[in-house]
Amino acid sequence: MLYLARMDVTFPADLSAERIAELQAAEKEYSQALQHDGRFAGIWRVVGEYANYSLFDVASNDELHQILSGFPMYAYMKVKVTPLAKHPNSIR
Amino acid sequence: MLYLARMDVTFPADLSAERIAELQAAEKEYSQALQHDGRFAGIWRVVGEYANYSLFDVASNDELHQILSGFPMYAYMKVKVTPLAKHPNSIR
Amino acid sequence: MLYLARMDVTFPADLSAERIAELQAAEKEYSQALQHDGRFAGIWRVVGEYANYSLFDVASNDELHQILSGFPMYAYMKVKVTPLAKHPNSIR
Amino acid sequence: MLYLARMDVTFPADLSAERIAELQAAEKEYSQALQHDGRFAGIWRVVGEYANYSLFDVASNDELHQILSGFPMYAYMKVKVTPLAKHPNSIR
Amino acid sequence: MLYLARMDVTFPADLSAERIAELQAAEKEYSQALQHDGRFAGIWRVVGEYANYSLFDVASNDELHQILSGFPMYAYMKVKVTPLAKHPNSIR
Amino acid sequence: MLYLARMDVTFPADLSAERIAELQAAEKEYSQALQHDGRFAGIWRVVGEYANYSLFDVASNDELHQILSGFPMYAYMKVKVTPLAKHPNSIR
Amino acid sequence: MLYLARMDVTFPADLSAERIAELQAAEKEYSQALQHDGRFAGIWRVVGEYANYSLFDVASNDELHQILSGFPMYAYMKVKVTPLAKHPNSIR
Amino acid sequence: MLYLARMDVTFPADLSAERIAELQAAEKEYSQALQHDGRFAGIWRVVGEYANYSLFDVASNDELHQILSGFPMYAYMKVKVTPLAKHPNSIR
Amino acid sequence: MLYLARMDVTFPADLSAERIAELQAAEKEYSQALQHDGRFAGIWRVVGEYANYSLFDVASNDELHQILSGFPMYAYMKVKVTPLAKHPNSIR
Amino acid sequence: MLYLARMDVTFPADLSAERIAELQAAEKEYSQALQHDGRFAGIWRVVGEYANYSLFDVASNDELHQILSGFPMYAYMKVKVTPLAKHPNSIR
Repeated sequence: MLYLARMDVTFPADLSAERIAELQAAEKEYSQALQHDGRFAGIWRVVGEYANYSLFDVASNDELHQILSGFPMYAYMKVKVTPLAKHPNSIR
Repeated sequence: MLYLARMDVTFPADLSAERIAELQAAEKEYSQALQHDGRFAGIWRVVGEYANYSLFDVASNDELHQILSGFPMYAYMKVKVTPLAKHPNSIR
Repeated sequence: MLYLARMDVTFPADLSAERIAELQAAEKEYSQALQHDGRFAGIWRVVGEYANYSLFDVASNDELHQILSGFPMYAYMKVKVTPLAKHPNSIR
Repeated sequence: MLYLARMDVTFPADLSAERIAELQAAEKEYSQALQHDGRFAGIWRVVGEYANYSLFDVASNDELHQILSGFPMYAYMKVKVTPLAKHPNSIR
Repeated sequence: MLYLARMDVTFPADLSAERIAELQAAEKEYSQALQHDGRFAGIWRVVGEYANYSLFDVASNDELHQILSGFPMYAYMKVKVTPLAKHPNSIR
Repeated sequence: MLYLARMDVTFPADLSAERIAELQAAEKEYSQALQHDGRFAGIWRVVGEYANYSLFDVASNDELHQILSGFPMYAYMKVKVTPLAKHPNSIR
Repeated sequence: MLYLARMDVTFPADLSAERIAELQAAEKEYSQALQHDGRFAGIWRVVGEYANYSLFDVASNDELHQILSGFPMYAYMKVKVTPLAKHPNSIR
Repeated sequence: MLYLARMDVTFPADLSAERIAELQAAEKEYSQALQHDGRFAGIWRVVGEYANYSLFDVASNDELHQILSGFPMYAYMKVKVTPLAKHPNSIR
Repeated sequence: MLYLARMDVTFPADLSAERIAELQAAEKEYSQALQHDGRFAGIWRVVGEYANYSLFDVASNDELHQILSGFPMYAYMKVKVTPLAKHPNSIR
Repeated sequence: MLYLARMDVTFPADLSAERIAELQAAEKEYSQALQHDGRFAGIWRVVGEYANYSLFDVASNDELHQILSGFPMYAYMKVKVTPLAKHPNSIR
């Protein structure tokens, strides 16, 4: 079951560069583990913004929320989720 | 080069059911040809709306505009395009 | 799996009162059948508006889209869907 | 008498993890007491957001405001209330 | 129990001046009857707009919806309702 | 001459509880004096929000601005003013 | 007493060029009479839009509404009024 | 003196294909004449939309409004103008 | 050449009252000098807001930007500029 | 391949004047190098705002993101990118 999420990241002005680097490293590890197990089906950078569009393939709303709220940078992200259904014109 | 497009369809109130069916058939054919040649990388229905999110993989802005403006239902669609870049956390 | 939907209804100015009454009767039948089978968990009128908030309990995004797009008045509705997860403070 | 409320929580960047945990524990207790007495008819997490939709069943606007403004995390919440009426298609 | 409503009126371009005058006369009668019985506590024109702010004093959400949806011009109005509670600084 | 004002209050995160209590006490005194002299014709709490709708009856735009900018909590308020005129359906 | 109004004009697609010319001529006459008597203190075109900003100098909200609703093109205008007060830095 | 304008075109649903073609031909001629005389410094299509961003180099606000309101398709365009100044980092 | 500007002022919460008073005094001096030389044609307070509408009469976009960015409180202002043209109904 | 970007700059209230001057100097150098190599085709100040519209001529979405995210002031900028295509009326 697919969902599109747009995530916008904003760090507080006084967060140290070290803390940001730690968060980004943890984020990368978390993100890539989810991509390898297939539930995180794609992630793309929005050009010019600290934001991404991500595609998730999960079994339920609860599983998606668990994944999203587990992101190391979740406290600094604004996330908007759009549930997706099969499109009649899709060849897949 | 990837782009995400959200398309919202609105037909005028007086468009006949026959004309709508014709447009939808032409749209399906056009859409699937583009999917088969690889430039239309994915299309998903937004749940509850006459709208979709579509992923395009094309060589230029001009090529994308040519594709989008060629949709048989283009005159009835509101399209918003977001250019995408590679995300540093992506495993692809 | 729960979803909240807000639906706003707008009829074209030239739709006849008879056609509107037909649509509303069909809508009621469709809506109540879904409520009886348990997938349509609640519907409430927004005070002062031709709009409702509805709660759906379905197995997937696709099932929800099938239900929503099957509403007799779907062509006249603007629908916004919010996927819901279990809240940690909920006693249910 | 039913009301739907959407609540979005934002903590200041410098609130300590301990203070947040205290607030969340107090919030849970307050919330569950209201759910047990029947005035708080449901609470659901918005997937991907520190936000919820809540359904209240109270006797008056004043009672609802008293309940909402009594939430331990009220100072950190943005609340939007929608008054609900019986829907003609509801089977309840 | 008080509610503030903002009502914006828009007539279709092809509604005749006669029909508009009929609707306005019926609206006036309906509105003034409700003002005399005390449930319609005030109505003011928004300067420069075909819109008003209205104050209602009713026993329930359902009663308010019944009143609002009964307005002769209801089909041409966009209504937004705000439930009000007693303010701690009010001297009333 | 009547004006409707919506006021939303936001305190900075680091304002002390004592200072807030002082401000609120001063605000109450100021507000009630204006209500007693008749220029502040009504104030109602927006349910679930630190906000109010207020009705002013003053002789001029300048007098209204003087009153509003004199509120002890003015620096923490966002105010939106709507000028009101007599409504043709009003019985007053 | 000064007010700023922004007016946006939209004619229905099927209004004849003759009717539009009539309306514009009547509008000009009405507008210039008000400018000559001093209550209409200024009018400027918004570059690129069928819109204007207008400055009114009137004795009351009611007078302003009477003037605005009397515009021959009022039914085709969206008007937003901002009440103005003396600015402490103004030299007038 | 430079201005950026975004223009969005919307034709009424019942405008004939012939009339649209006529308008587009006249638009092209008008547009290219202005480009050749240097006052219309650039025009670019917004990908996926019947819209453009245009750059004008004119002597005054009045001249720009005269140019814009003279577009053959002006009645069907929504235009938003942004006045531009020299940027301190520009090498031109 | 005329431009309308709306300016909204927001001071950081920790700016001292002394610094604010200094800024306001410098602002007044700067503003009044511009009014006396004729380029700042008018300034009015928006009732209930720390905001103004200002009318400028300058020779170019660059001159306007130079004036606006020179305001002592510029760093604390959000400014929106609307270029104005002569209105065909204006008697001036 | 052309893209239009609007960039709005906001510095945190506690960033020192020295640090801002450093950032602006680095920004100027970075910006002008890109202008000289032809990929940064134009930059204009939005009158009255700490914002600009910029035109980029690059080979891909990825190249544009690399350029934008490399701006010394990127962390303090909100950027919105619009991909552009050739306009049929353009003489270039």
